[in-house]
Amino acid sequence: MTEATTPSLRLTLAGARLILDAAVAKAAAMGVPQCVAVVDPGGHLLAFNRMDGALWMSFDSAQAKARTSASTGKPTGLMPPGVDDKLAMATRGQRINLPGGLPIIVDGCVLGGIGIGSGTGEEDRQVACAGVAALAGATRFD
Amino acid sequence: MTEATTPSLRLTLAGARLILDAAVAKAAAMGVPQCVAVVDPGGHLLAFNRMDGALWMSFDSAQAKARTSASTGKPTGLMPPGVDDKLAMATRGQRINLPGGLPIIVDGCVLGGIGIGSGTGEEDRQVACAGVAALAGATRFD
Amino acid sequence: MTEATTPSLRLTLAGARLILDAAVAKAAAMGVPQCVAVVDPGGHLLAFNRMDGALWMSFDSAQAKARTSASTGKPTGLMPPGVDDKLAMATRGQRINLPGGLPIIVDGCVLGGIGIGSGTGEEDRQVACAGVAALAGATRFD
Amino acid sequence: MTEATTPSLRLTLAGARLILDAAVAKAAAMGVPQCVAVVDPGGHLLAFNRMDGALWMSFDSAQAKARTSASTGKPTGLMPPGVDDKLAMATRGQRINLPGGLPIIVDGCVLGGIGIGSGTGEEDRQVACAGVAALAGATRFD
Repeated sequence: MTEATTPSLRLTLAGARLILDAAVAKAAAMGVPQCVAVVDPGGHLLAFNRMDGALWMSFDSAQAKARTSASTGKPTGLMPPGVDDKLAMATRGQRINLPGGLPIIVDGCVLGGIGIGSGTGEEDRQVACAGVAALAGATRFD
Repeated sequence: MTEATTPSLRLTLAGARLILDAAVAKAAAMGVPQCVAVVDPGGHLLAFNRMDGALWMSFDSAQAKARTSASTGKPTGLMPPGVDDKLAMATRGQRINLPGGLPIIVDGCVLGGIGIGSGTGEEDRQVACAGVAALAGATRFD
Repeated sequence: MTEATTPSLRLTLAGARLILDAAVAKAAAMGVPQCVAVVDPGGHLLAFNRMDGALWMSFDSAQAKARTSASTGKPTGLMPPGVDDKLAMATRGQRINLPGGLPIIVDGCVLGGIGIGSGTGEEDRQVACAGVAALAGATRFD
Repeated sequence: MTEATTPSLRLTLAGARLILDAAVAKAAAMGVPQCVAVVDPGGHLLAFNRMDGALWMSFDSAQAKARTSASTGKPTGLMPPGVDDKLAMATRGQRINLPGGLPIIVDGCVLGGIGIGSGTGEEDRQVACAGVAALAGATRFD
């Protein structure tokens, strides 16, 4: 039988801050200032921090990575070359394939995404992993 | 002789979080969930929180209020009617005259702005005041 | 007989700077820091200065005023209320009816426009007048 | 203890004009008409000149180069291929990797950026270098 509604989970601001603070702490430990964005499943911002020395332009890329992972339910940076840029253009820069975005998944439910920007792709990815790992029960990518 | 540079001050992430946390605490005490945005003098986001129950669309208005106060060095909501909407259109929605935006001023230097959105104009304004009041030496508007 | 081409005049950078510098000097004499934009007949920027203390958001409004006057060949601020805002929306904020925009006209030929922003409408208008008056032979509006 | 504010420096219009005029003089000496944009640390325009014969479309690219260098604190044109275009898309055309953008740095503090457009990448870069070199104490890139 097809149900008209289905149970879901929602990330609170407390949860978003937990993830954000863990990411900021990891970036500080790495000595790489970062922009850290946490978004809901609709890609809308829940919490954001730009660390001292991170680029203000990276607000946009951090948010785009977080939104992409929230929408796809997958890490960013893994799409085949060529297709990725066409999708970026078709979505006016929203669906972006730069490493540093991760979905926030609990019990198979996508609660949002985290996106990191200002470092190298690998640095960004590590910080995103540390953020997601701070949420008990979240699917890990490290 | 006109100098090529002049001394200034910069708000750190620690300072932005101080302001943001005070605003969130005030909104919680009022029982009104809010979007809270803190921006630098160029209007770029330093820190953001969307409280549980606040509107995701209010990210844009909170940010616009913060940016407007950061650019003008004045509270939002005080421009004469008619002119305000024309300025909003001329700046493509950037310069907005809804109450709830305050500049962050220390020693006569505009360090950025705070913008609040999701409540009534008066609620937003009170939360912005509480945010600014948390920064030692900042010009107060309450 | 209908000609295929017709003679025209073009404003040089030297001419644009003459107008801009006169506007900046007038604003300084008034003690009102301003954004000053000079555009060509296509509305594209030729020269711009933001004076110390003028609002960065006023780049957009100064440019919009200059573009509106370059396109209409008339001062801004004189359109009937109601229609003006509809035209602003229809042109995505380009055709704006805030005072402070003037066409640059020599021998009946529109060479561009000047737009001023950061002061009151009347202050902006006076600065624009001073800018245009600096160009020998230009139609004056003061 | 982490401080809420930190000392900084600000570029005046006088400083921006010094840089702009030196860039225009260099471009004139090279016989290559250019668009020259000088922005503050938030990427907002301080001063602009389009030389006779330069392309009006290069306003956008000159501004984007200046903004990119102001945000990153680095010359444009040095990012690895592939990543650069993804970052441009993620920032909706703001973060651009064409040569001709330089940060304006004094005492380790990024005061803004200069961006040049209408020539070849190498011509643009040389003009930007001449602009920055005109500011006493600024970090040089030639």
